[in-house]
Amino acid sequence: MASLRQNDNQNIEDETITSREKVSTTTTVNEISLRNKPLKKCFLPPPTILDNIIKTKKRKNNIGEKYLFQNYSHQYENKNNIKFKKKMCASSRVCKMATINTSEENTLLDNQSSSSTDIKPPYLINSEPYSVAKQLLSKIDKCSSSSQRESLNSITSEKISLMTASEQSSVVQPLLTDLYQISMAYAYWKANKHQEMATFDLYFRKNPFGGEYTLFAGLEECLKFIRDYKFHPTDIDYLRTVLPTYTEQEYYDYLLQLDMNNIKIYAVPEGTVVFPRIPLLRIEGPILKTQLLETTLLTLVNYASLVATNAARFRSAIGTEKALLEFGLRRAQGPDGGLSASKYCYLGGFDGTSNVLAGKLYGIPIKGTHAHAYVSSYESMDDLTERELCDRKSGERRPFADLCLKYLNELGPILKILPEQTNKGELAAFTSYALAFPTNFLALVDTYEVLKSGLPNFLAVARALHECKYQAVGLRLDSGDLAYLSLEVRAKFREAATKFNIDYFKDFNIVASNDINEETLVSLEKQGHSIDTFGIGTHLVTCQKQPALGCVYKLVELDTSPRIKVSQDIEKVTIPGRKNLYRIFGHDGKALCDLLTKYDEPVPQPSVKILSRHPFSDQRRAYVTPTSVESLYKLYWADGEIKEQLPSLKDVREYAKDQLNQLRKDHIRDLNPTPYKVSVTEALFTFMHELWMKNIPIGELD
Amino acid sequence: MASLRQNDNQNIEDETITSREKVSTTTTVNEISLRNKPLKKCFLPPPTILDNIIKTKKRKNNIGEKYLFQNYSHQYENKNNIKFKKKMCASSRVCKMATINTSEENTLLDNQSSSSTDIKPPYLINSEPYSVAKQLLSKIDKCSSSSQRESLNSITSEKISLMTASEQSSVVQPLLTDLYQISMAYAYWKANKHQEMATFDLYFRKNPFGGEYTLFAGLEECLKFIRDYKFHPTDIDYLRTVLPTYTEQEYYDYLLQLDMNNIKIYAVPEGTVVFPRIPLLRIEGPILKTQLLETTLLTLVNYASLVATNAARFRSAIGTEKALLEFGLRRAQGPDGGLSASKYCYLGGFDGTSNVLAGKLYGIPIKGTHAHAYVSSYESMDDLTERELCDRKSGERRPFADLCLKYLNELGPILKILPEQTNKGELAAFTSYALAFPTNFLALVDTYEVLKSGLPNFLAVARALHECKYQAVGLRLDSGDLAYLSLEVRAKFREAATKFNIDYFKDFNIVASNDINEETLVSLEKQGHSIDTFGIGTHLVTCQKQPALGCVYKLVELDTSPRIKVSQDIEKVTIPGRKNLYRIFGHDGKALCDLLTKYDEPVPQPSVKILSRHPFSDQRRAYVTPTSVESLYKLYWADGEIKEQLPSLKDVREYAKDQLNQLRKDHIRDLNPTPYKVSVTEALFTFMHELWMKNIPIGELD
Repeated sequence: MASLRQNDNQNIEDETITSREKVSTTTTVNEISLRNKPLKKCFLPPPTILDNIIKTKKRKNNIGEKYLFQNYSHQYENKNNIKFKKKMCASSRVCKMATINTSEENTLLDNQSSSSTDIKPPYLINSEPYSVAKQLLSKIDKCSSSSQRESLNSITSEKISLMTASEQSSVVQPLLTDLYQISMAYAYWKANKHQEMATFDLYFRKNPFGGEYTLFAGLEECLKFIRDYKFHPTDIDYLRTVLPTYTEQEYYDYLLQLDMNNIKIYAVPEGTVVFPRIPLLRIEGPILKTQLLETTLLTLVNYASLVATNAARFRSAIGTEKALLEFGLRRAQGPDGGLSASKYCYLGGFDGTSNVLAGKLYGIPIKGTHAHAYVSSYESMDDLTERELCDRKSGERRPFADLCLKYLNELGPILKILPEQTNKGELAAFTSYALAFPTNFLALVDTYEVLKSGLPNFLAVARALHECKYQAVGLRLDSGDLAYLSLEVRAKFREAATKFNIDYFKDFNIVASNDINEETLVSLEKQGHSIDTFGIGTHLVTCQKQPALGCVYKLVELDTSPRIKVSQDIEKVTIPGRKNLYRIFGHDGKALCDLLTKYDEPVPQPSVKILSRHPFSDQRRAYVTPTSVESLYKLYWADGEIKEQLPSLKDVREYAKDQLNQLRKDHIRDLNPTPYKVSVTEALFTFMHELWMKNIPIGELD
Repeated sequence: MASLRQNDNQNIEDETITSREKVSTTTTVNEISLRNKPLKKCFLPPPTILDNIIKTKKRKNNIGEKYLFQNYSHQYENKNNIKFKKKMCASSRVCKMATINTSEENTLLDNQSSSSTDIKPPYLINSEPYSVAKQLLSKIDKCSSSSQRESLNSITSEKISLMTASEQSSVVQPLLTDLYQISMAYAYWKANKHQEMATFDLYFRKNPFGGEYTLFAGLEECLKFIRDYKFHPTDIDYLRTVLPTYTEQEYYDYLLQLDMNNIKIYAVPEGTVVFPRIPLLRIEGPILKTQLLETTLLTLVNYASLVATNAARFRSAIGTEKALLEFGLRRAQGPDGGLSASKYCYLGGFDGTSNVLAGKLYGIPIKGTHAHAYVSSYESMDDLTERELCDRKSGERRPFADLCLKYLNELGPILKILPEQTNKGELAAFTSYALAFPTNFLALVDTYEVLKSGLPNFLAVARALHECKYQAVGLRLDSGDLAYLSLEVRAKFREAATKFNIDYFKDFNIVASNDINEETLVSLEKQGHSIDTFGIGTHLVTCQKQPALGCVYKLVELDTSPRIKVSQDIEKVTIPGRKNLYRIFGHDGKALCDLLTKYDEPVPQPSVKILSRHPFSDQRRAYVTPTSVESLYKLYWADGEIKEQLPSLKDVREYAKDQLNQLRKDHIRDLNPTPYKVSVTEALFTFMHELWMKNIPIGELD
């Protein structure tokens, strides 16, 4: 049978399919077993037997006992299992586990059922948490309506309610900015210039990681920040201690009542593939307000886009077949760095995260099993307080720990190892973990020695689970030569599958998670490996190769007059004036170039030839005849409300994937990619260069 | 006179002096002027004159007018200036500015007064915000007592109240963890193993940035997290959707009531210089609880320590004379990454930040003036709506804009530039900025061209300010060759000082802020420069050289029995058991080595020879006879309360500085530093190696 490994991939791949309604056509044994049947319980042996087990284990306190003999009640309990309960035994430690009718046995093991299931085991199979998460979020909102700064409830549009304040880090607030924004705001106000209408462009000058594309991310957070923009009275109290004492009270009054209702935000949609010099956001409004937004918008866009792009590059390096999980929270740059990483790595093409809060807040599938500490916490099989597992179908109690030992001995000759040399603390840890999660057993196998200890112990437990009609998920490698180990492990899986005559053994999921970066993935693909899933942390979330994206925020128009920032560094010269942005597509549906036009220029038309010019270099120009033209800007914020229905994170993820498919492969490849062209119209070129000349002083040689 | 530049440094250096009560012995002209006198106001010319100015300026709307002619009232208004007010003119736009008695004039300009002042201009002179910030924090606490998750109010010690919940990012909560912690917790609980007493060590294996030391930071945040640890009911609702459906309700009930009251945290004090393999935190308690803390503690310590160390390295590269400001918010890894960076860069030796929220929350001095956009927002001197400034002493109205133009012309021959070639939009921007902040004028001079436009415009405005009895602060360079430009600018300052016969002109503060990293600082020091202050962003906060510190969290003891995690990579082997940690000092007061002992070993004594051994290598060992011994651990958390009075951030900063001074210079130097020795006692060595052998399976060659 095709079995669990494929199923896992299937479930992960489901995440990348646009329709949320899609029902998986294959399901796991475990899922099926729980599908149409009432959940029943089975119990451990009566106290007399249990006592023997407990004797093997010192007790440090009595608290544990409380759980040992109490009666059990559960939401899934129903009439059907009351009988079963009586039949088994009462008042012993609960071994609550779903069981199934024996009549279903064959169907189950043949894995042919296709109806949907409501069971979501924690590892790799947590594919549709969105609706649940959304419900939760609304609950949280009620619970925590008082848990936000009052001011955050200000100006939400009634029509479009999409984001909850609880999703937003409380540190995203007006004071999360550079002091000079507030100084400048005062100077504008003092000069009575604060109401002049300004346009700012937010853009970057260079793609990150030596690549030739960037995924734009962070827009939703920007809009939330703008929507909720409000100084708190204590903010003003603080500013009073910072600004000169002669700063007028009216200025503070003005700040206190400030909101962002009369500004406009045009932006490219979140998840769009973007390039140097194209304004990702165009911010229009009174200069004091638009100036105040600079730092926070940059903070929200820079890292979000950087890490989303990094994730997309990892995905591109390994292809679409493998599962990619983000495991970076512990090494992220601050708690919120970790949370942002989880969100935007998912956007960039990852399948899940280990970060539970990201799961709760953003509905991202969360994954994880156990750590080395869990393995180290057992020293021998004597440490096991529970040794029995109920058969999944019959409910019959099975001596699970003894089965594990038995199968370990059988594995000796199969794997050519000495069963007595595997670490028995590790075996005990695997056994107890399987007892806790029989439907989701995935073992970390490198605490002692992968091939001589971790692998045999894993296979022994997997074989014992099979005996009880459960199917193990796989194992995780966290050190050593991942290519070599994965191939060795896969070979052993195949041998075990043959010897035990259990086909799915050859397809166990191999997860690898040791300090993996983009180059590791490229190299693994080249040398060959047998890894199904990658757990990636440090290098992904901290963007080791380039830890910052350099978005800037530049004034391009004030009071209807264009502004330019010239510089001796030509790349730092701004493209002045309000502009529109179009993506030009060729015959093959691939993007040819992006074109910036003056705000009042006509929209480029399909089949009409245009002269596109390099913004800085006279000589570089080309004619282009679009097959189709896409206008990239949408109006996202105006009149104090969000003007576009924002897509879910999952939809943004799909959109980003489509966006990358619109690019020619040579723009995306990891080695020497071709730069994508960002050009300006003839009119914009002339306009810009005239202003440029006007603004540079002519020196005098002496 | 020694003048402002020295004063600025003085004020910054004040930050590094332990006693907060220290009163600066020098003060600025501006400070003195405002010291003992009631604040007065002066007003712009009557409407007839004002009308002429307004004519030069189109008005886009009427809102501005509201501010133009309204009466002014201010907290600092008092009897003394009512007369003055009447004498000048009423109902015109306010030019509120402190004035002084002419009788004080000489004293002021000679800058001899030494009494304290309550004026804190915003740039570079914001030295004692702590008490104000503390007051604010208590206010904020009151305002936002309902703004925290209810559960966060749980178990604060009455005796030690030091941190406010509002200081803590709301994302730091129990769900900010990896899923496997919660899975493992369930498995421990299920196996009735959750109450076993565990000891975890939190440590790193390698110093960052190719260096040989690390500053430990993040402890206070860890303690807050532990103090406030509480699952929210919605957290449990979410977990229910993630864990298998057979997970017992009792487990959820258990989680819901969980707190960290019966765990213990031993740690080295925040700001301590630390080294690979020494446990920074030793966490003791029931394994379920101590396991649940892993990810969050790592997140809180890793980046904090990394960026504090980075800051210390920047400081070490440039020496103690120069001012270092953190400007990284916009490029940080997420909003909280920016906030953490501001906090821990200050801890590591920076003098201030641009991040206003960091100023509010942590009392860090905040700095900043204006951006390129402010300069671009003016096109010509005609854009000025205000052109007059009141003389600081006499209150007399002076034609400030005209003075600026006049002095620009005088500067032509002095600087050998063409006055008509400087950008007049830039001059207007500088003029208006000086009108808004006459006591704190610091101009960004590279919007068009530093030497031909920015510098002459700055000096013209500075000269005009001097005419009105104000003293400019300096200028900022944000592009180009910083060493060259700073030297050129300083030379011009000197020439202007001589020609104008104003001594302090030669000492204007030169701030530099263009993509500076540690190497830039080292190189600038070598080649010579004239920069006084560095504003450092991207490379500092994102730790470009190495964006993550690799702290790990390892089980070393369970149920009184030691645990070891062996590995084929020798550096990954853990040092088992509960341990104590001592720092051994030699004759010169410098640290010789750190020594880990078994928990029950005697404390090393001064003058008593000890054998110190490398933890992994048999051959590497040495006798050491301490001159003095410091026990590095303190008990920070026990009995549900914080056991140590935590020092203020400023005190931690001082402590860190002292700590670095305890190290020999060869451990700190940037090129090939000497590794510092971390050793174990003979007893610990033997204990560890026996356990190690016991836990590795012996293979069989075949």
